[in-house]
Amino acid sequence: MSSVLLLVIGAGALAVLYGIVQTMSLMRASPGNARMQEIAAAIQEGAQAYLNKQYTAIGIVGVVILIALGVLLGALPAVGFLIGAVLSGLAGFAGMLISVRANVRTAQAASESLAKGLSLAFRSGAITGMLVAGFALIGVAGYYYVLTDVMGLENTSREVVDSLVALGFGASLISIFARLGGGIFTKGADVGGDMVGKVEAGIPEDDPRNAATIADNVGDNVGDCAGMAADLFETYAVTTVATMVLAAIFFRAIPEVVGSMMLLPLAICGVCIVTSILGTFAVRLGKSNNIMGALYQGLIVTGVLSVGALYWVINSLVTGPVTVGDKTFGASELFYCGLAGLVVTALIVVITEYYTGTGFRPVKSVAKASVSGHGTNVIQGLAMSLESTAAPALVIIAGIIVTYGLAGLFGIAIATTSMLSLAGFIVALDAFGPVTDNAGGIAEMAGLPPEVRVTTDALDAVGNTTKAVTKGYAIGSAGLGALVLFAAYTEDLKFFAANAAAGSFFEGLGAVAFDLSNPYVVVGLLFGGLLPFLFGGMSMTAVGRAAESVVAEVRRQFKENPGIMTGEVKPEYGKAVGILTSAAIREMIVPSLLPVASPVVLFFVINAIAGKVNGFAALGAMLMGVIVTGLFVAISMTSGGGAWDNAKKLIEEGHHGGKGSEAHKAAVTGDTVGDPYKDTAGPAVNPMIKITNIVALLLLAILAHGVA
Amino acid sequence: MSSVLLLVIGAGALAVLYGIVQTMSLMRASPGNARMQEIAAAIQEGAQAYLNKQYTAIGIVGVVILIALGVLLGALPAVGFLIGAVLSGLAGFAGMLISVRANVRTAQAASESLAKGLSLAFRSGAITGMLVAGFALIGVAGYYYVLTDVMGLENTSREVVDSLVALGFGASLISIFARLGGGIFTKGADVGGDMVGKVEAGIPEDDPRNAATIADNVGDNVGDCAGMAADLFETYAVTTVATMVLAAIFFRAIPEVVGSMMLLPLAICGVCIVTSILGTFAVRLGKSNNIMGALYQGLIVTGVLSVGALYWVINSLVTGPVTVGDKTFGASELFYCGLAGLVVTALIVVITEYYTGTGFRPVKSVAKASVSGHGTNVIQGLAMSLESTAAPALVIIAGIIVTYGLAGLFGIAIATTSMLSLAGFIVALDAFGPVTDNAGGIAEMAGLPPEVRVTTDALDAVGNTTKAVTKGYAIGSAGLGALVLFAAYTEDLKFFAANAAAGSFFEGLGAVAFDLSNPYVVVGLLFGGLLPFLFGGMSMTAVGRAAESVVAEVRRQFKENPGIMTGEVKPEYGKAVGILTSAAIREMIVPSLLPVASPVVLFFVINAIAGKVNGFAALGAMLMGVIVTGLFVAISMTSGGGAWDNAKKLIEEGHHGGKGSEAHKAAVTGDTVGDPYKDTAGPAVNPMIKITNIVALLLLAILAHGVA
Repeated sequence: MSSVLLLVIGAGALAVLYGIVQTMSLMRASPGNARMQEIAAAIQEGAQAYLNKQYTAIGIVGVVILIALGVLLGALPAVGFLIGAVLSGLAGFAGMLISVRANVRTAQAASESLAKGLSLAFRSGAITGMLVAGFALIGVAGYYYVLTDVMGLENTSREVVDSLVALGFGASLISIFARLGGGIFTKGADVGGDMVGKVEAGIPEDDPRNAATIADNVGDNVGDCAGMAADLFETYAVTTVATMVLAAIFFRAIPEVVGSMMLLPLAICGVCIVTSILGTFAVRLGKSNNIMGALYQGLIVTGVLSVGALYWVINSLVTGPVTVGDKTFGASELFYCGLAGLVVTALIVVITEYYTGTGFRPVKSVAKASVSGHGTNVIQGLAMSLESTAAPALVIIAGIIVTYGLAGLFGIAIATTSMLSLAGFIVALDAFGPVTDNAGGIAEMAGLPPEVRVTTDALDAVGNTTKAVTKGYAIGSAGLGALVLFAAYTEDLKFFAANAAAGSFFEGLGAVAFDLSNPYVVVGLLFGGLLPFLFGGMSMTAVGRAAESVVAEVRRQFKENPGIMTGEVKPEYGKAVGILTSAAIREMIVPSLLPVASPVVLFFVINAIAGKVNGFAALGAMLMGVIVTGLFVAISMTSGGGAWDNAKKLIEEGHHGGKGSEAHKAAVTGDTVGDPYKDTAGPAVNPMIKITNIVALLLLAILAHGVA
Repeated sequence: MSSVLLLVIGAGALAVLYGIVQTMSLMRASPGNARMQEIAAAIQEGAQAYLNKQYTAIGIVGVVILIALGVLLGALPAVGFLIGAVLSGLAGFAGMLISVRANVRTAQAASESLAKGLSLAFRSGAITGMLVAGFALIGVAGYYYVLTDVMGLENTSREVVDSLVALGFGASLISIFARLGGGIFTKGADVGGDMVGKVEAGIPEDDPRNAATIADNVGDNVGDCAGMAADLFETYAVTTVATMVLAAIFFRAIPEVVGSMMLLPLAICGVCIVTSILGTFAVRLGKSNNIMGALYQGLIVTGVLSVGALYWVINSLVTGPVTVGDKTFGASELFYCGLAGLVVTALIVVITEYYTGTGFRPVKSVAKASVSGHGTNVIQGLAMSLESTAAPALVIIAGIIVTYGLAGLFGIAIATTSMLSLAGFIVALDAFGPVTDNAGGIAEMAGLPPEVRVTTDALDAVGNTTKAVTKGYAIGSAGLGALVLFAAYTEDLKFFAANAAAGSFFEGLGAVAFDLSNPYVVVGLLFGGLLPFLFGGMSMTAVGRAAESVVAEVRRQFKENPGIMTGEVKPEYGKAVGILTSAAIREMIVPSLLPVASPVVLFFVINAIAGKVNGFAALGAMLMGVIVTGLFVAISMTSGGGAWDNAKKLIEEGHHGGKGSEAHKAAVTGDTVGDPYKDTAGPAVNPMIKITNIVALLLLAILAHGVA
């Protein structure tokens, strides 16, 4: 089996190699004229400074938790945590480093042709995507290799399981900070800049006279790119780890298959990294200049190749049929589960495009509603955001029913893993968005001809949709994986209860049921359910505060220096970046710690009131509650935000009066509202859900370890 | 026991008598000058015409369901459905009839003094409140009397239980239509009128030159008043019925207490009607002119008296301790549960005031955010709306833990009943809002001195808070009552499974568990969870469409008749009312049928895929899912909407630049967005939750009846 594991690590290394080679090719592209390079350098500098400060702040929290984990759980889990945390941070950092170099080159390429612009932007996205997937796979498979092959630990032992879970925790913890901090920064800049620039001063987006404009472009890189990369790293790592943990639990009693079943999720991710790389080469703009079509082409190639790869890898690793509970399944059932995961991905992509693409009813209806004013634009956007949750939820429901029917909970886990095995390609689609957004900004600031901006705007509109797709995909995988994370919790609990030493915390615990007729289960559901709402509220407030500080700063500069408006004097871009950096880092701490502390608090409160069994029941229900509301809150925010953004784009293309019309002003308001929805609060719900689940798992391990 | 029942019916009759006497006194108040009476007549006419059409449309649906119920369940449940439906409709109609007469009289009284305006508006609200509570109590207690005392049926028999549930269904069905239809009408008018009047034409709210202004005032009466009254009627009736059903199930085996336990919820409601009436007399404006303080005074008096009344009635009816499951409880435990219900009510009132009152951080922050523009206003409003869900959810969680600890599920039921027993007073607080809103409109249109408008605006601002309070209270009772409704379902299911005849649907069903590790339970949770979101999206879209039709109509009138703007020609108010009437009735049908059809569809789909046990498990979980997300969606919408509305009021009082400033324009946008949030989608979630639960109960009864 260790050869398979080495092959998996090799696949991860291949992804990193792809990233390096493509980066070298990217760096050879022209970075444009001196003015463009100057702007890009300012963005780079700001992004680098922000991430340095952000990771320093996170590092402090991280070191505290690292020490605590070391004391409470031992060295191996602490090392796992460190690996997860460092690689998650690295994925984000790498994403930022690529995108701040790709933006100016994309602006230059777009000034030559749409196809060149698309090619460059997408390639830079693919670099980030492959680095995210590669790092994650190397991290999980590599540490698993060290633990089992090098150190010789039993693969189903607590040390291994706890260390993998701790690795997931490290990834989650960093990613929630990165998502939220980056999200607050980018949307504080975007919202603040738009309010004071577009609406108040009447100057276009990305106008160099706006002091917030560099900060806005920095934000794209630290939020939409670095934050997103850390988030997807986390989703990928946690899902793989959860599936491995579930395999360890389910197949512990069948020694001849447990090894291959634990390898299966890693192997699936390994082969799909290869298919994702192949897919990137299929992204080519056709004669019709259909950007979304070109991206779809790559996605379809990846998907079709992945079907074959899944078939091969599952049939190679899974031998005879196995029986878990009342389900008996073999390679073919698991293959169909994997296929279902790919189908869920495809459907979520299609649904998200419907709700956020400029060609369909939802975005058109928001654009049309803008004609009657700001209020109706926002109402229609909210209506679409609420409505957009239904179809993805039904897809997830169908996915659960089908895959559970085929192979029980392990079938759901394999489907979720297959879904996420495409992360390399999906991240490529997403990271392409902020790069084109930046390219447009640079084109505007550098005074490139308006056609360049038209080209980057066309890319950007597609980017809005692909960004929404990734978020829908990440949260959708959490929804499909809900039962997997929950099963990991319940099975762990059973294990600890069954193997409790005398005097240990779990002694005499007995069976814990999660029946909805138990009021403490309902209490857990409601408490979990409130977290995404409270978290969403806190992060929206944070963006509002950050934006207000930007508005005040830009206003001050306009007022104290009238030369800025006439274009004679350059505004102090660095001041706006500095103000936002402090604001974002200050604001990210409390909401990020909410999901870390909540499971612990709930467990100990209910434990004190109604005993351990009810404490564990409430905690389990909380994990489900946070997914049930989190799924809807996140999808509504990300799709709604995408719809608002593209409704504005649609009007800017000349519909309903075009740029400068009253409808356009209303659409700008909608876009502003959608910004923190789709880029701060909504996407951060995904790591929030994961972290709640992982903390619950760690709590079990700590309670077992502490006294045993 | 029948004497107690007659006393309860007598209490209901007393409430109706209070309504009649107060109405007579109200009618003696001066209806103002001729211009005011003319305007009021136009509002009356529009409201009457709308409700006639609405109830005709609902009547058609109602008759179809009545016949279906008669065929499927027999005559007695059909009659129950008819009673619930007719009384719910009547409660709405009566609310409207009162408020269209009180509005002009309040305008007149407000021109004399704030105290007189408050007194008149509050008294009219109290009439509606007492009629709602009185009708509900007479309906439930009266039909129960007829079934058990007159017809001699066993009080725990299926005929009685099914008939009471059908009564609840009748009330729910009418109330969801009334809430939604009225909500679409009122907010279509309000949003449309504001967009085209305040924002486009730059004329004040309620300016007589705006063709939508009469429709706006009609809307207050048919939506905020009639719709709200039907909704609270339903909440009151369904909660009482659910508690009675639970008592019938729990105490069936203890014949000596079952009768008094089934009477207990009715008796609690009966005594609290009396305390609510007494409380209304305590509402008096002190020297400080603190309107909210005056209302609180009445609420506190009602609350304190209710504590005593609860103590008395529970100690009179509950004799020795009883044991249900693992809980043994007597009068004192049940009294503390009732007390907990009152405390929950008080806390929800305080929390809602915090989030929607003009004196606290949330509303102030929304007002402040308006200074930086439309976008930041909406962002801050959304942030507050999300945040506002946390505290009420924690209160409900605490309520569940405490009352379950005291007396198990029956304890939760008694707490919920006690909470709702104050409905008479709470409705009074709510119905006072639309009356003052209308009074302001009439004062504006009739050209009364601006001081009158200042007075009515002060009343209206408090009305915004009290309206949010009622909605939080209604949805909070659903959250607290979630386990009661769920228990009614699970216990019914157990009953049918245990008593299944050979060949019947329930034969050999066995035990149904609702464990979260069963994927079909998770499917049910997710499916239930999506309903409030989809329903919210559909109703927001409906308001958007209705508002757009109003905007088009008002624009057409301004354009075709320039004399309207100069004030020479009166706009055609009736046309706007007519257009909205058709729009609202057309738009209300599909969303209202969503919660009726969903439980049936889910059950049969899962039944086909995974068998009866999983079908029933998924259906049960769906009931919980719809509450878990519905609670948060509804609270966020109603509190958020209230905060936006009052942020606008705060600015109009002169903060942040006052009327006409840029901040004011932004606040108007927020208010517009909040309108369908707080008055259409949010409040309709409450009957939606109830109807889903009631349909599930009826489905069990029909399945049992159909084949047995």
